[in-house]
Amino acid sequence: MAVFQNDTHLFTATESSIASTLFNSPPFQSFTVFILEVSSNPFKNIHSPAFLPIERTVPVDLVAADPEAETFKSSVANEDGDDNVTVAGFVLFVPSYTTFAGKPGFHVEDLLVRECYRRKGFGKMLLSAVAEQAVKMGFKRVEWSVLEWNVNAIKFYEEMGARVLTEWRVCRLTGDALEAYGDANY
Amino acid sequence: MAVFQNDTHLFTATESSIASTLFNSPPFQSFTVFILEVSSNPFKNIHSPAFLPIERTVPVDLVAADPEAETFKSSVANEDGDDNVTVAGFVLFVPSYTTFAGKPGFHVEDLLVRECYRRKGFGKMLLSAVAEQAVKMGFKRVEWSVLEWNVNAIKFYEEMGARVLTEWRVCRLTGDALEAYGDANY
Repeated sequence: MAVFQNDTHLFTATESSIASTLFNSPPFQSFTVFILEVSSNPFKNIHSPAFLPIERTVPVDLVAADPEAETFKSSVANEDGDDNVTVAGFVLFVPSYTTFAGKPGFHVEDLLVRECYRRKGFGKMLLSAVAEQAVKMGFKRVEWSVLEWNVNAIKFYEEMGARVLTEWRVCRLTGDALEAYGDANY
Repeated sequence: MAVFQNDTHLFTATESSIASTLFNSPPFQSFTVFILEVSSNPFKNIHSPAFLPIERTVPVDLVAADPEAETFKSSVANEDGDDNVTVAGFVLFVPSYTTFAGKPGFHVEDLLVRECYRRKGFGKMLLSAVAEQAVKMGFKRVEWSVLEWNVNAIKFYEEMGARVLTEWRVCRLTGDALEAYGDANY
């Protein structure tokens, strides 16, 4: 995603920074990730205490030859004795809140389908799963950001029923400008 | 805020919808609110298990005559036997996540200072408190949205060190378009 957005200079995450920050709370209460896994075998032993996995069967020619299958081999799949399962994408989202509705929502931080799995409906599957979860929980909004030059993504989101808000801008406080508030004297 | 944004038709929150959704988790783990209270008496018995309140003394002529002081009287203040404390504003924020940094951040959902308390530095105090909390927790980003025609707000945010991102757009899935995913067959 950093490559796609021309933002590799902003990428500083490590396996340890992610592992120590991302999975400290039950699903849906804070940072939550849905993982998209693909296998040419039927899945077995799919289990999750908080979420019933969504399973789809797609035509075999939709599962592309994956040049990085070994790198993205699923560790969960290994537990189940199926070493043929590959991580193809993910969606990361967090609860948000709308005071206008007095109800929570979800903010989708990242949606990514690995390149060789694109244009096969997997992105829609991931985003729809978030929307379905929101409705199940009585949440009233799902929001995310898109780069304005990414016309394919905008078309895709609009086809899913989303509106692209033209009059809002994102403000971001990061880096030294943020750290300056660490011992603020305001 | 709904009035200011010409969005009163979108406002459906009630005291009960807010009370049942907003205060179900410890501060900073999910939806969190900092309340700005003003009093012409010194505060007494300020206490909070999770957050050390920030106290500021301002010149007495900065505390405006408040035509709605009775409506916005603080219930916390009443517990302390001071019925002269008024809620002047709030900031509502939630944890977010940046996969680029592999670190959490805060997303500021609402920042409001009641009209008769504006242009006195209280908005900066509220937003700075969120930024300070982010730094204390090792969070790497504070983000929020602004209406592009709200040039005063944009100037204020830039003076606080924020960048206004011009190439991102917010996508929003709400109402019937969202509810349609409730029994999705995707």
